[in-house]
Amino acid sequence: MTAHPRLSLNQATIKYADLATALEVTRAAGIGAIGLWREPVAAVGLDKACALVADSGLRVSSLCRGGFFTQPEGPERRAALADNRRAIEEAAALAAAAAPGSAPALVLVAGGLPPGDRDIAGARARARDAIGELVEDARAAGVVLTVEPMHPMFAADRGVVSTLGQALDIAEQFPAEAVGVVIDTYHVWWDPELPAQIARAGRGGRIASYQVGDWMTPLASDALLSRGHTGDGHIDLPAISALVEAAGYRGDVEVEIFNQAIWDDDPAAVARRTADAFAAAAGVTAV
Amino acid sequence: MTAHPRLSLNQATIKYADLATALEVTRAAGIGAIGLWREPVAAVGLDKACALVADSGLRVSSLCRGGFFTQPEGPERRAALADNRRAIEEAAALAAAAAPGSAPALVLVAGGLPPGDRDIAGARARARDAIGELVEDARAAGVVLTVEPMHPMFAADRGVVSTLGQALDIAEQFPAEAVGVVIDTYHVWWDPELPAQIARAGRGGRIASYQVGDWMTPLASDALLSRGHTGDGHIDLPAISALVEAAGYRGDVEVEIFNQAIWDDDPAAVARRTADAFAAAAGVTAV
Repeated sequence: MTAHPRLSLNQATIKYADLATALEVTRAAGIGAIGLWREPVAAVGLDKACALVADSGLRVSSLCRGGFFTQPEGPERRAALADNRRAIEEAAALAAAAAPGSAPALVLVAGGLPPGDRDIAGARARARDAIGELVEDARAAGVVLTVEPMHPMFAADRGVVSTLGQALDIAEQFPAEAVGVVIDTYHVWWDPELPAQIARAGRGGRIASYQVGDWMTPLASDALLSRGHTGDGHIDLPAISALVEAAGYRGDVEVEIFNQAIWDDDPAAVARRTADAFAAAAGVTAV
Repeated sequence: MTAHPRLSLNQATIKYADLATALEVTRAAGIGAIGLWREPVAAVGLDKACALVADSGLRVSSLCRGGFFTQPEGPERRAALADNRRAIEEAAALAAAAAPGSAPALVLVAGGLPPGDRDIAGARARARDAIGELVEDARAAGVVLTVEPMHPMFAADRGVVSTLGQALDIAEQFPAEAVGVVIDTYHVWWDPELPAQIARAGRGGRIASYQVGDWMTPLASDALLSRGHTGDGHIDLPAISALVEAAGYRGDVEVEIFNQAIWDDDPAAVARRTADAFAAAAGVTAV
């Protein structure tokens, strides 16, 4: 069984599987790449994780996630930046251990407003400044800091970078080999500026990752989990995939789904269903 | 007892009160204006509603709501447009019956994607076209069609107009006396373009209504209801109010809160609490 050649299973889709299981079910479903998360990597340790990844024969398409650096200056901010530096090293090591075609992309979620702070412009400026502090570390490690615009419903408590245009405004302040963006359909599908901003991202060589997931209604009671398999929701995924391809992106395409029912399912079955749904509905070409 | 002179209580904040009760608790709280909804108006009939409004001595700051016109051509779309024409007449009649300083503003929520339709650009174009069909009716009645950008989390199932910039892109295709926008902090607070777009709205004379409500976290299990009294959440309301004032808006300011706990409370108490919170936290000047 072979899945779509550019499909990557983001590990968040099978959240409760440990790293070894995640690699195994991905490979068993015929999927050639995986998007990793730091927590299951840390659970086995980085060296063991690299060995497991190397043995799997899979490509690694990204590491989720760094960021959460909107704090004002102080010990918390310094700790966040130190943690991001560790994440950069992890992203480099995992991509190096994995199969050729892997991407040393570290996905960055900015973080929300600090407690009691209503100055979202200030929080956004601090996120940009934090990326500036990390750029040299990223370049030295050959890692791309990959800024993720989050759906505006998470602006207060999860990610203050709310649009692809805003992510690019930040990324373009730094060299393209060190700072890019991730386009996640779940977060950006609604944006009237999306076609123009995807084209802009492509012109600048800033598309470091492309993630697909669908928007389900009614919203789940935990809105973060209101994602579905490709084709099950409201997003015109083939249209967005065509824009991303027209912008020049030819890398792996991750399926990242936060959904309690999918998490509660058998991970091997989820991997197979992901592969089938992706082939049928994501509109990604095989190039 | 007198509330802030520019405060208007949007009737949705006391959703379960009938029109007579809503008018009474608004006046008893010392609030000078009310934003009406069509359903409680229809429950007593337009003539009776106009009489009640006239007797109350209150200003009417808007009528919610028309719109829901993203359907493709056909009987459903024609019915939606006919209903919007009735709403225009209602907005005109209620504003004429109410105290001087009332605003004949009909708030329009575009509606979501039709069932099975993933073409959000097409749905947006149909919303614009519907407004175009209503413009002459609005002008004839002296009513301002007031386009409401909805938070992007409602793009699929409630309102495909997602940003203030997009609302202005639509409004500016028509005369300013007939088509404007409403700035509702709950829907637009997260937008990195907000300062520029508020200024643009002011320059064009397009601000037909300003509504305030706060953004609470964690999101309520029904995300539509995750609104709070001014000052209770994450939005820098004084900053946005200052932008709206700098853009030239001097009209009434509505508090519109969808929140189950507030709906379940005594409407007289909610009206008083609204007045207190508004005076303390909305940052609206008394001019």
